[in-house]
Amino acid sequence: MFSYTAKAARRNSRGDKDAFASCGDRPNPCKRFASVGRRPREMGVAMTYCCGILVREGLVMIADTRTNAGLDNISTFRKLQLFEDPGRHVMMLASSGNLSVSQGAVNLLVEGLEDPASGRIERLEDAQTMLQAAHLVGRAVRRSLALVGDVAETSVSFDVAMLFGGQIGGAPPRLFMIYTAGNAIECTPDTPYLQIGEHKYGKPILDRAITYETDIYDALKIGLISMDSTIRSNLSVGLPIDIALLRRDALKSEVATRIDASDDYFRDLRQRWSKALREAHIAIPPPPYGRESK
Amino acid sequence: MFSYTAKAARRNSRGDKDAFASCGDRPNPCKRFASVGRRPREMGVAMTYCCGILVREGLVMIADTRTNAGLDNISTFRKLQLFEDPGRHVMMLASSGNLSVSQGAVNLLVEGLEDPASGRIERLEDAQTMLQAAHLVGRAVRRSLALVGDVAETSVSFDVAMLFGGQIGGAPPRLFMIYTAGNAIECTPDTPYLQIGEHKYGKPILDRAITYETDIYDALKIGLISMDSTIRSNLSVGLPIDIALLRRDALKSEVATRIDASDDYFRDLRQRWSKALREAHIAIPPPPYGRESK
Repeated sequence: MFSYTAKAARRNSRGDKDAFASCGDRPNPCKRFASVGRRPREMGVAMTYCCGILVREGLVMIADTRTNAGLDNISTFRKLQLFEDPGRHVMMLASSGNLSVSQGAVNLLVEGLEDPASGRIERLEDAQTMLQAAHLVGRAVRRSLALVGDVAETSVSFDVAMLFGGQIGGAPPRLFMIYTAGNAIECTPDTPYLQIGEHKYGKPILDRAITYETDIYDALKIGLISMDSTIRSNLSVGLPIDIALLRRDALKSEVATRIDASDDYFRDLRQRWSKALREAHIAIPPPPYGRESK
Repeated sequence: MFSYTAKAARRNSRGDKDAFASCGDRPNPCKRFASVGRRPREMGVAMTYCCGILVREGLVMIADTRTNAGLDNISTFRKLQLFEDPGRHVMMLASSGNLSVSQGAVNLLVEGLEDPASGRIERLEDAQTMLQAAHLVGRAVRRSLALVGDVAETSVSFDVAMLFGGQIGGAPPRLFMIYTAGNAIECTPDTPYLQIGEHKYGKPILDRAITYETDIYDALKIGLISMDSTIRSNLSVGLPIDIALLRRDALKSEVATRIDASDDYFRDLRQRWSKALREAHIAIPPPPYGRESK
């Protein structure tokens, strides 16, 4: 449902808007956001939590779906997009920040951007390497932002941040974080994860538990724990969660699903994690300070 | 060492600056901060982590000691102050944000502020109730801020946030958070803790583990775990940590000490907590998603 197959993209390039109905059939999000005058930092990137984990065995991406335009206008929007042509490439894009800019960028990546120098239309599916693809995502963000006009004139933040990962052909999987200016940083084995949005609550478990050698399903599990910590402490991040898992060299997504409140595994994970944390702090001896004075 | 006894305050009111040497004998922090042009939100309240926990048995306060004026100018400053007159009152004040404003406020609370209406000099030690004392802290913050001049003319943030708790006489212990404008919110049993500064990393464990009925030494332990999570994920928060514990109706601090890197208990707590988290996520079964497609 949230997958852009190469075929759909080609249909779309002929004008079939249904090919990306999941993005295009909702009220214009730009209007939704533009009507809100909150502080840029609260409005912008800190809404949402997305996490990408790149381990030796492959790539995991996790994103929540909550958006807001003020506290009383909360909706569910997909923020994790899958671009897949099995056997050739799998690319995943998660976004946080201004929804009109990020959705606009996704639409441009599917419809294609004109290269000003050559006049060629560039689409994500045509990228030969993940680096080329990441640069294209950066250009799509800038182009989408330019459509918004002069951002300095409103109090709304048009900042976005994106996680973009995947594998093309026989090259290794890669994971990038792309900023509003279109520039990017790349995930490396030293810190094999990247986060965007409301990242702080869920960072401690990643810092402690993830290494480049972590099993890929353990990485998914730890990512879900990180998401659970965030959901629990911050109202702006909420279920359902979209998850995707790409095993190295499979060139086909192994997991691409949505977890909602009725999901047995996630509910069990939340309960077990809560219980384990409770037991963990109970097992630590009481502090010795001041005891002598009692 | 970081305690303001009533006697010291009286000495100080006669001009003995040694009585608060721990605040007054360093280079003017206002100058340190004023020379730095970073973004207000990074410069301000997010530096530091302090946490106050108010349980039925009493009050716990924990504060780190790291300050910065730019990433290459990092120092250790006490941010947790104890005002104690055993048998009469114990008050604790933790601060985050602009160090010149918060230290200025502390100095005013010790030396005394003139009440513009009555002309009387008001000192923290003279407050009859915690509410009066909290209002005085708010006025001290505003007065200290006014000394800075027109804050709109610089790019530095002069925002502060304070946690102020304690017990006076036979009234119950109370805990307040005081903002730059001098206004305050009070901690209640519904959420029996307050945090200032870099609060997000350490919030999940508090959300899960603390209730108003938690044993006071467990509250201290959980506060230390919360501090550990923050230190581990954020460079701007660092050892040593100051801790204080006030048992209800004791009217004398039961713990008032500093934890540094050589502290055996805190080192053991950090190791145990890391190990328990590792074991906790290992014990959770692997995610079932996508397994069928393997």
